[in-house]
Amino acid sequence: MRLFVYISYKGTNYHGWQFQNNAISIQQEITESLQLLLKNKSLSIIGSGRTDAGVHAKQQVFHVDVADNIEIESLLFRLNGILPNDIIINSIMPVSDKQHARFDAIKRSYEYHLRTKKTPFGENEYYYHRNPLDYDAMNIAASYLIGEHDFQSFSKVKTEANNFICTITRAEWVESKEGAIFYVSANRFLRSMVRTIVGTLLDVGEGKLKAEDIKKIIAQKDRKVAGRSVPAKGLYLCEVKYPK
Amino acid sequence: MRLFVYISYKGTNYHGWQFQNNAISIQQEITESLQLLLKNKSLSIIGSGRTDAGVHAKQQVFHVDVADNIEIESLLFRLNGILPNDIIINSIMPVSDKQHARFDAIKRSYEYHLRTKKTPFGENEYYYHRNPLDYDAMNIAASYLIGEHDFQSFSKVKTEANNFICTITRAEWVESKEGAIFYVSANRFLRSMVRTIVGTLLDVGEGKLKAEDIKKIIAQKDRKVAGRSVPAKGLYLCEVKYPK
Repeated sequence: MRLFVYISYKGTNYHGWQFQNNAISIQQEITESLQLLLKNKSLSIIGSGRTDAGVHAKQQVFHVDVADNIEIESLLFRLNGILPNDIIINSIMPVSDKQHARFDAIKRSYEYHLRTKKTPFGENEYYYHRNPLDYDAMNIAASYLIGEHDFQSFSKVKTEANNFICTITRAEWVESKEGAIFYVSANRFLRSMVRTIVGTLLDVGEGKLKAEDIKKIIAQKDRKVAGRSVPAKGLYLCEVKYPK
Repeated sequence: MRLFVYISYKGTNYHGWQFQNNAISIQQEITESLQLLLKNKSLSIIGSGRTDAGVHAKQQVFHVDVADNIEIESLLFRLNGILPNDIIINSIMPVSDKQHARFDAIKRSYEYHLRTKKTPFGENEYYYHRNPLDYDAMNIAASYLIGEHDFQSFSKVKTEANNFICTITRAEWVESKEGAIFYVSANRFLRSMVRTIVGTLLDVGEGKLKAEDIKKIIAQKDRKVAGRSVPAKGLYLCEVKYPK
């Protein structure tokens, strides 16, 4: 029986989603917990995608194949019992054996949390930005990202990917009491793409770039022309969507 | 020159606001930082009131007397520079020498943050409550607390206070995405009062008490008839109000 498992995690204490040889990952924590509970040392899990070190997830999804007689409610309860407090299993759903957490995902949504006011709460859960920002300019700039584009300018230089085409369906800053949240959705994202988009939009917000410059940056297909990549601690994977 | 200093802190790493002989307090951290910056070893600070170990503040106020030539903006900046990240100075205001952070306060407001959904974020910043709650019943019960009453039933047994009369002006549960927040304001609060009120209202929410029982509990003036005191980590001092 194949299960889709919906989880949340705080990424601060992990070197990202993906297994690492010499560092602890979220995939490893969950895999080892499932292997222990289900007494199956060969069990493996497939995530919807990787998140980098320090990046959080309000909703990540993975699939796993288990014996047909597994009781789902009991598995969820026992799994939360042995996982560390910074990884939470939200729900488990049986799916058809053909459904794949990574290949079948049609949309991913991220949030980037910015605070412009210092608070002692939520350590490592946001990026603090001191300078005032022009959110109107940032939202005009963000609108140029929407649609199908080659996002090579926003991709980490040494990526193995050779297809930089993504379709962004939402890119919007919404101000909050303590700062702002950047909402972005796309069919797929390149390595470091959201953090580089945010860094570039912050340059627009501070007046270092004009909103229109985003169009040129996209057209140049060169990582060097975009802004810096902002810290992982502000980034949240928030939704992975599958066809109904 | 007397200053009113508005601060926030996460209480998790401290044994409360008040100086302790053998444990670190928020008052001590701030006093030592000010003594260092202003080169004045006899400097002391007076808070609007105590918060217990583990209790947070979105807005606490203290007063301190400093030399007249102190530059306020520079003091704020340097103070935030040397304080730990879980104590933040939000603003500093010069006031008349007669204004007193504790005696002149006319209203204190607290919030108690409850989550009914587990999340990996905001560690030690809320209380997780598994069982379903009847917020309507809890709000009816809370309404009986409003007004001038003797709150001895909600006061820590071995308190030195001999006046248990407080006037509550707000007592209300508001549901949020992740749970609920209890908002409570009064002219003054007794030791452990908010946490015991919340514990008692949770008993109402779970059906262990009826909303009307709150009236009897107040009338009995006996700590043993009220509910348990809920954990400090969900409690926030949010506003201290002074006459204009």
